[in-house]
Amino acid sequence: MPHIKLAEGLPGIVGPMVFSPETAAPMNDLANVLLRGPNTLTPGEREMIATYVSSENDCFFCQTVHGCVAAYHFNDEALVKKVKLDFEEAPTTEKLKSLLAIAGKVQKGGKHVTSEHIARARKAGATDKEIHDTVLIAAAFCMFNRYVDGLDTWAPRDPGEYEGRGQRIAEQGYNVRPENFPQKTHA
Amino acid sequence: MPHIKLAEGLPGIVGPMVFSPETAAPMNDLANVLLRGPNTLTPGEREMIATYVSSENDCFFCQTVHGCVAAYHFNDEALVKKVKLDFEEAPTTEKLKSLLAIAGKVQKGGKHVTSEHIARARKAGATDKEIHDTVLIAAAFCMFNRYVDGLDTWAPRDPGEYEGRGQRIAEQGYNVRPENFPQKTHA
Repeated sequence: MPHIKLAEGLPGIVGPMVFSPETAAPMNDLANVLLRGPNTLTPGEREMIATYVSSENDCFFCQTVHGCVAAYHFNDEALVKKVKLDFEEAPTTEKLKSLLAIAGKVQKGGKHVTSEHIARARKAGATDKEIHDTVLIAAAFCMFNRYVDGLDTWAPRDPGEYEGRGQRIAEQGYNVRPENFPQKTHA
Repeated sequence: MPHIKLAEGLPGIVGPMVFSPETAAPMNDLANVLLRGPNTLTPGEREMIATYVSSENDCFFCQTVHGCVAAYHFNDEALVKKVKLDFEEAPTTEKLKSLLAIAGKVQKGGKHVTSEHIARARKAGATDKEIHDTVLIAAAFCMFNRYVDGLDTWAPRDPGEYEGRGQRIAEQGYNVRPENFPQKTHA
């Protein structure tokens, strides 16, 4: 049971966003700009950063949904699992690893990011905007994750319930509409 | 020196927001709705929650700026200091204390909020919307604070530099414009 009364059957962030459309609007805008706006980081790289931070925050709903989107973009579900488990050993670029390292520090707190983390990312070719966006994606998911779990929202535990979600979000973006989400089955 | 090249002399969140206006827009929108929109929580109560969370995240710029706004609304600078130090002993309402307790748990992570925290807030008269907004304010400041510190932004350390800021923000809202902020003095 969520901590406040939310419309039934809406998973994760959808319940609170339907409860509070006036705050949902800027939150969706931010997610769309950060994860889908014009950028030298691919949507897949940005979704991977979001997934990793959500995993570090132990937010089941966010890591599952954004993990689906990242897996769709990379066409590689195993890569998402490896990144969450140990990104340094995952078969991906040094540049993405260096940005995931920054994101992981932001997750712990902004002051955990050191000039060494930044130097590593620059050496791997990251630009100021890419570093900026990595910090903000990580910071934003510290918000989204806390919103979802701080209200104790419900989410389906069956991975099958999330099938097709990655492609749909990749194509249509973030725009909370109840009909886009699986409904809770009533006993 | 900030981790990325930002316009000089812009304190705290202003530098990154000027660097990235496309993400600043929804972030300002969110702050204005959350902290200044129509609400049964007063702007002072909401700014106090933002200040407390920023203090727990050890974000100097955010706790100072929002502390000024809270002090302006309550006309009580000492109260802000007491809330940051030990809100349970501060001379304020049980309702605000119960919401600060929820906010403090969200700061640590969404799953730290328990049904006991919610029950205390309800007993003190908090509504579902007030609980929702408290969780989201706390979550949002976990983003703002990480954005400010994750990029290692500069901020004036002299409290005098923030004078008048509380009233100005209370009257005009959140809309980052460089001219609203103290300029860094060049040696």
